[in-house]
Amino acid sequence: MSNFVWDKNRQSRTAVAEAVFCENKNSEDLCNIIEFNVKNNTTVLLTRLAPTQRLALPEALGQQLDYDESSQTAILNYTPHTQLHSGICIVTAGTSDMQVAKEAQRTLVFNGFDSPIYADLGVAGLWRLLDKIDDIRRHKIIIALAGMEGALFSVLAGLVSAPVIAVPTSVGYGVSTGGKTALDSALASCSPGILTVNIDNGFGAANAAIKIMKQFVIDNHLS
Amino acid sequence: MSNFVWDKNRQSRTAVAEAVFCENKNSEDLCNIIEFNVKNNTTVLLTRLAPTQRLALPEALGQQLDYDESSQTAILNYTPHTQLHSGICIVTAGTSDMQVAKEAQRTLVFNGFDSPIYADLGVAGLWRLLDKIDDIRRHKIIIALAGMEGALFSVLAGLVSAPVIAVPTSVGYGVSTGGKTALDSALASCSPGILTVNIDNGFGAANAAIKIMKQFVIDNHLS
Amino acid sequence: MSNFVWDKNRQSRTAVAEAVFCENKNSEDLCNIIEFNVKNNTTVLLTRLAPTQRLALPEALGQQLDYDESSQTAILNYTPHTQLHSGICIVTAGTSDMQVAKEAQRTLVFNGFDSPIYADLGVAGLWRLLDKIDDIRRHKIIIALAGMEGALFSVLAGLVSAPVIAVPTSVGYGVSTGGKTALDSALASCSPGILTVNIDNGFGAANAAIKIMKQFVIDNHLS
Amino acid sequence: MSNFVWDKNRQSRTAVAEAVFCENKNSEDLCNIIEFNVKNNTTVLLTRLAPTQRLALPEALGQQLDYDESSQTAILNYTPHTQLHSGICIVTAGTSDMQVAKEAQRTLVFNGFDSPIYADLGVAGLWRLLDKIDDIRRHKIIIALAGMEGALFSVLAGLVSAPVIAVPTSVGYGVSTGGKTALDSALASCSPGILTVNIDNGFGAANAAIKIMKQFVIDNHLS
Amino acid sequence: MSNFVWDKNRQSRTAVAEAVFCENKNSEDLCNIIEFNVKNNTTVLLTRLAPTQRLALPEALGQQLDYDESSQTAILNYTPHTQLHSGICIVTAGTSDMQVAKEAQRTLVFNGFDSPIYADLGVAGLWRLLDKIDDIRRHKIIIALAGMEGALFSVLAGLVSAPVIAVPTSVGYGVSTGGKTALDSALASCSPGILTVNIDNGFGAANAAIKIMKQFVIDNHLS
Amino acid sequence: MSNFVWDKNRQSRTAVAEAVFCENKNSEDLCNIIEFNVKNNTTVLLTRLAPTQRLALPEALGQQLDYDESSQTAILNYTPHTQLHSGICIVTAGTSDMQVAKEAQRTLVFNGFDSPIYADLGVAGLWRLLDKIDDIRRHKIIIALAGMEGALFSVLAGLVSAPVIAVPTSVGYGVSTGGKTALDSALASCSPGILTVNIDNGFGAANAAIKIMKQFVIDNHLS
Amino acid sequence: MSNFVWDKNRQSRTAVAEAVFCENKNSEDLCNIIEFNVKNNTTVLLTRLAPTQRLALPEALGQQLDYDESSQTAILNYTPHTQLHSGICIVTAGTSDMQVAKEAQRTLVFNGFDSPIYADLGVAGLWRLLDKIDDIRRHKIIIALAGMEGALFSVLAGLVSAPVIAVPTSVGYGVSTGGKTALDSALASCSPGILTVNIDNGFGAANAAIKIMKQFVIDNHLS
Amino acid sequence: MSNFVWDKNRQSRTAVAEAVFCENKNSEDLCNIIEFNVKNNTTVLLTRLAPTQRLALPEALGQQLDYDESSQTAILNYTPHTQLHSGICIVTAGTSDMQVAKEAQRTLVFNGFDSPIYADLGVAGLWRLLDKIDDIRRHKIIIALAGMEGALFSVLAGLVSAPVIAVPTSVGYGVSTGGKTALDSALASCSPGILTVNIDNGFGAANAAIKIMKQFVIDNHLS
Repeated sequence: MSNFVWDKNRQSRTAVAEAVFCENKNSEDLCNIIEFNVKNNTTVLLTRLAPTQRLALPEALGQQLDYDESSQTAILNYTPHTQLHSGICIVTAGTSDMQVAKEAQRTLVFNGFDSPIYADLGVAGLWRLLDKIDDIRRHKIIIALAGMEGALFSVLAGLVSAPVIAVPTSVGYGVSTGGKTALDSALASCSPGILTVNIDNGFGAANAAIKIMKQFVIDNHLS
Repeated sequence: MSNFVWDKNRQSRTAVAEAVFCENKNSEDLCNIIEFNVKNNTTVLLTRLAPTQRLALPEALGQQLDYDESSQTAILNYTPHTQLHSGICIVTAGTSDMQVAKEAQRTLVFNGFDSPIYADLGVAGLWRLLDKIDDIRRHKIIIALAGMEGALFSVLAGLVSAPVIAVPTSVGYGVSTGGKTALDSALASCSPGILTVNIDNGFGAANAAIKIMKQFVIDNHLS
Repeated sequence: MSNFVWDKNRQSRTAVAEAVFCENKNSEDLCNIIEFNVKNNTTVLLTRLAPTQRLALPEALGQQLDYDESSQTAILNYTPHTQLHSGICIVTAGTSDMQVAKEAQRTLVFNGFDSPIYADLGVAGLWRLLDKIDDIRRHKIIIALAGMEGALFSVLAGLVSAPVIAVPTSVGYGVSTGGKTALDSALASCSPGILTVNIDNGFGAANAAIKIMKQFVIDNHLS
Repeated sequence: MSNFVWDKNRQSRTAVAEAVFCENKNSEDLCNIIEFNVKNNTTVLLTRLAPTQRLALPEALGQQLDYDESSQTAILNYTPHTQLHSGICIVTAGTSDMQVAKEAQRTLVFNGFDSPIYADLGVAGLWRLLDKIDDIRRHKIIIALAGMEGALFSVLAGLVSAPVIAVPTSVGYGVSTGGKTALDSALASCSPGILTVNIDNGFGAANAAIKIMKQFVIDNHLS
Repeated sequence: MSNFVWDKNRQSRTAVAEAVFCENKNSEDLCNIIEFNVKNNTTVLLTRLAPTQRLALPEALGQQLDYDESSQTAILNYTPHTQLHSGICIVTAGTSDMQVAKEAQRTLVFNGFDSPIYADLGVAGLWRLLDKIDDIRRHKIIIALAGMEGALFSVLAGLVSAPVIAVPTSVGYGVSTGGKTALDSALASCSPGILTVNIDNGFGAANAAIKIMKQFVIDNHLS
Repeated sequence: MSNFVWDKNRQSRTAVAEAVFCENKNSEDLCNIIEFNVKNNTTVLLTRLAPTQRLALPEALGQQLDYDESSQTAILNYTPHTQLHSGICIVTAGTSDMQVAKEAQRTLVFNGFDSPIYADLGVAGLWRLLDKIDDIRRHKIIIALAGMEGALFSVLAGLVSAPVIAVPTSVGYGVSTGGKTALDSALASCSPGILTVNIDNGFGAANAAIKIMKQFVIDNHLS
Repeated sequence: MSNFVWDKNRQSRTAVAEAVFCENKNSEDLCNIIEFNVKNNTTVLLTRLAPTQRLALPEALGQQLDYDESSQTAILNYTPHTQLHSGICIVTAGTSDMQVAKEAQRTLVFNGFDSPIYADLGVAGLWRLLDKIDDIRRHKIIIALAGMEGALFSVLAGLVSAPVIAVPTSVGYGVSTGGKTALDSALASCSPGILTVNIDNGFGAANAAIKIMKQFVIDNHLS
Repeated sequence: MSNFVWDKNRQSRTAVAEAVFCENKNSEDLCNIIEFNVKNNTTVLLTRLAPTQRLALPEALGQQLDYDESSQTAILNYTPHTQLHSGICIVTAGTSDMQVAKEAQRTLVFNGFDSPIYADLGVAGLWRLLDKIDDIRRHKIIIALAGMEGALFSVLAGLVSAPVIAVPTSVGYGVSTGGKTALDSALASCSPGILTVNIDNGFGAANAAIKIMKQFVIDNHLS
């Protein structure tokens, strides 16, 4: 029996197509999944594909992937969208949050959405966030990333009317090792209405934003 | 100096008005806050107001509150909306999740939104959820509540295209005491795009849903 | 043998006199300690003295205490200072932090320091803090209290040059139950130089502020 | 004195023979144990034998092992069973659970039991499980593996009358790192009667299944 | 809409009928559920029904329940089985485990199974277990209960060929408060093949035992 | 079957007789155990017997107990030793540790050992410990109790050659709630050779001290 | 858009200039930040710059850094202060705390403060601390570092009138792995007034000390 | 200033001489400490000296060490004792506990004590322990090592009158990763009087045993 079952109708059922989370997969399983999708000519997003995993693929397969190291994502059979939808933006607290931010951004692009990144707006220097707040307010959904103590989530959500999707990142040391402190800050925020996803889950935040946009904004022939 | 500062422009700034979280407040502080809003003729929602706290208020103040014990919420200066907006529904895994579900529902009504509750659809009897799934699918945002192991979140999110806001509840014993297992299940779900709020935070889930609806659906004169 | 040993030279050794932490003590031990200090005519601060503990004392002893319920503190043999030193202020995120704030304030008064409380300045409504920031900046040491996610610590410390002593409070529910999230936020803050004490430890924060002030500002005959 | 004592009557006493858990053992101890069993001509299963540990063995010893890298198990003195008993099956939530699934499967084969693996049936695409549920229902014991949030355990147990042995796997990141979320989901499941073993313990799940089968189905001369 | 949906075909689907877990339910919900089953003449087991909950029921409803305080269970519309099946026994480490043991025993009786309790066989006095081990060995499934450090699970499982279902109990203090130490001991046991359920989950252990027995021993007309 | 099995040869086997830990036991079980020992005329120690449990016993049984509220212990059929052995002392960090200290002391007296308590020697006022250190050094075994941060264990163990048995106590708040911080301090101490028992386990510390004394000092006819 | 926003007015606002925390940054981001500051001729402190990160920088950039491996810090555009302010000292419990101690010391030097290190004064040999206590007492602020059980914090704070800033270090194994035990000891100390920073946060402790000194001692033209 | 202060009178003060814990020390600090002791001709024990640390020492220094890889210990200036004292033995649950057992054994030999190791007596095969129990009972102090669930501690302590010093080991996976489950089992044991040290702390257990022996058995000229 095969090790995987492709969920080909996931997009019509849940608004976002199946993607391949590569972190726990060995080379053999990755090959099988990629070959299956090559054969079926499916457009597929692969996330958390480490450079070493990419290099371990047979050259012929690897070259079919459009690999982006800064986000550790790859796309198979990619045809760029002719036009990207706007309305979503990404805000990060620090430089170290960029890999996760880019995972979110590439997931959005793959699904037809543009998303500017407003980087390094952590609250230690509040003016950085206030400087950009008018630009940020122009978006309908805000994906915010922060590690350490995650104070950005509360401050930002108190300043905007758009829903804020918080992505805690595993940036920090001591008590914030692993991202738990930022996660709990998002969940326990004094600013009501913050929505949270798992630590470092840029892909999940993008999926949620896409699901919201497709409910309200996007006509059916897009997806 | 006074013990509180009322955030009167919160609604215009963040799409949802300030509410009073009563759980950690003593009688004196509750009285001051209610009296302030009586004087200013503000419409206010109070959450987590235990029956004992309600009874401890001076009779004259208490009678000005429209108190609902099943959701432990009260409203001051309430004028019911003539028409409620639809598009949001609430799904619960078990009977024990009802108080939190009703906190969400009353927050939504207070803000002008109708939200049917589909109760007791936990996955131990999968047919219960499948029986109602077509009704649930007609909504644009789904608030889902579950305690214990929170498996409902993943199953539901795999069946619908609407965004799912998960509210883990503190229902359970042993390893699930306090709601941590349900929370982690929502965050770690294999169904991508689930959005999570704090344990038992029906109010927060409703706020997030309102913020989304106001971005996309509601014209400005509503709020 | 007696159950306690009075550390009478603690003030000369450590800058702050011994106080009695009452939370874990039974009536018999409290009586013995108070009687000992009555006999020795010592001025003593008692903290975390619950109203029920106060009432359980023999009337004769109880009446010798200057008891303040809002801070759950009592003072034996108190002679008010003719003049209080300024330079320390207290900032709270919410109304529910007031009991701990008042424990800090009364400890400061007992030691000869005035400390205004700037209450309810949590970052959900950032304008509340910004409104008061010029007043706050006039102080040499800032004691800040916050429960829930403790974002106030980071924002405040990024706006002032005075050292910030963070007191996480056990205000919150779900993941923030017990104050652990606010504590970890203070410790992991992106704003460098925040100093932290134990959860709900208003007394400890006041002690630290006093030790700093006595090093730098206060002449020897004060203490 | 020797570093180990072989429990040679474990099979007659507990229904399953002693096996060698290799994870924490150094080369010297592994050699001693294998040599002892070579000398005594015992048939032995070795689990968690990493490829590097296998390679570090002296060539002569290593070649006596029937090593299977996909399950990280080895068998010494193996004579395949002429016929395998049926009645047990294995269900996995995702591709990444396969190594643990194969540890269970090889333990079963070693003890005379066949066990088909139904792979990648996680509930994000519920149809995958429902597609196979009739096949799964034909078995008397079901071993289920899932990482992340482990929702598969609850859904599966609500659909079948056979006992479900849950093996949480250390597949996941953020809050599910290490397998704790899947474990707690199995223990706190709303579907009553789920039985759980330690995280990644495919060997233990197989042992339990074997003990049940031997109680009820298997005649004595098998083992 | 009603707060509950009765899963009436659960027994045919999963081998054990739906039961009512009362711990988190208020009086109103309990009444509705009992009345529904009175009306439908269903035989139902209620677990974790505290004496105070039982007393809060309307007298007419309460009297229809066969309530047993020692196990905190009640049965509605109970007709005792004319003959009970044997094969399952219960072993406890200490006297304090009895309430959970009785929850398991009553669940078994309700489903037609006899189960002697071998009480107070904790390993501090190993002779107590060894004295009874021959009796215990005569059973096909063993449910074992232990709090504190849960060493009984490992010792027992090393002495018998029957499968052992471990029920960790919340008996203990300090590091074992809440039953977590006993739970982890069961999961991490050096004796392979132990199966575990949630802390204090006597009902779940009984359900698992019943599912096994029905697979192998019981003919269809029983249930 | 009875709910308990008395381990009557525990003293000859393990040097200390069986005692009754009352914390998790209901009235019926306590009565049965006491009656059994009244009938057999056994001398028995009962620990963690709360005043309410004592009062709930039938008057006739209760009066047979020599109950001491300060240590929450009772003794049945007690004949005081004509002479107590010396060599063990007890040191406490604070007044709040006294109940646990007295549990240890009464366990020692019951077994024939005298043990002075040196109370309130916590390291905040180091002179208190140094004042008594010569007296403490005269003992062969030191039982030390501390809550909060448990620094006493390390300081004391660095000053004496006798073995130190650390009893962490559940005295403290915030991060030290429940005694975990004091426990970890004892285990992680920079002073080598500290021996630790469970939180609040004065009985266990006394048992360990007795076992050591009986190995080395006490002739056989004592026990 | 750039990945970082330089907070150039942080020193005037918060008394300490922005520094670069390098631990989570990749080579590209480090280069961009250094180049930006080279171009602007800013004097900058870099912390947690591992030797491997230093080596990975382009040679031209790397040579502009004054790198110190023992503290893993680097300084760009450094002009040594002609005179250092005194008043701060550093005390360590063990040799293994030196890297963190040196991070604090170099941060202080960078900001114009001298700080002698009193090393290896852990309380297992109390005389070592008492030997140096008179020297330590001559300082106005004490930064104390300890791993394992962190008992040094309590003992030291009980002996001096200067404020103690505790830096728990991740030195230890078993229960003290990661520094959590030392952190909780500092927070739960029986010596009132200890101030705590995150585990291994020598930089933060130095920042706090600098903020205090600048409030009280240093005239404005220094910084 | 030097990075270390040698505690040369530790043996006379605490019965056991200072040893060097090498795990967190860099090469430079190790060299300084060894050179200091070479110069002073001190006999010193070094523990947790990894083979890589040993190899990184300058050859001249390294050769002065009597290094034993199986226990990762080294001795400087060692003169073997002409006769070793008996009375202490070591019991291990599994082969994987041997390194820690040997750390304890070498610490004992270094201090003049012989200690046979009874290996691999885990309770999964209870006969292994019962086979050796008479030999074990001949010792006055028993050091017991176990990882996983640590059931050996309880069973052993229930069978012997000698004090049992439990050393939990970091052997195990899933819930027992890191040794926490074995530690909590020792602390929460139903067998009273077990004494516990930190996880993997063979050195500490040996120190405690030595301190006991020196109190009772050994005349002064030994040490």
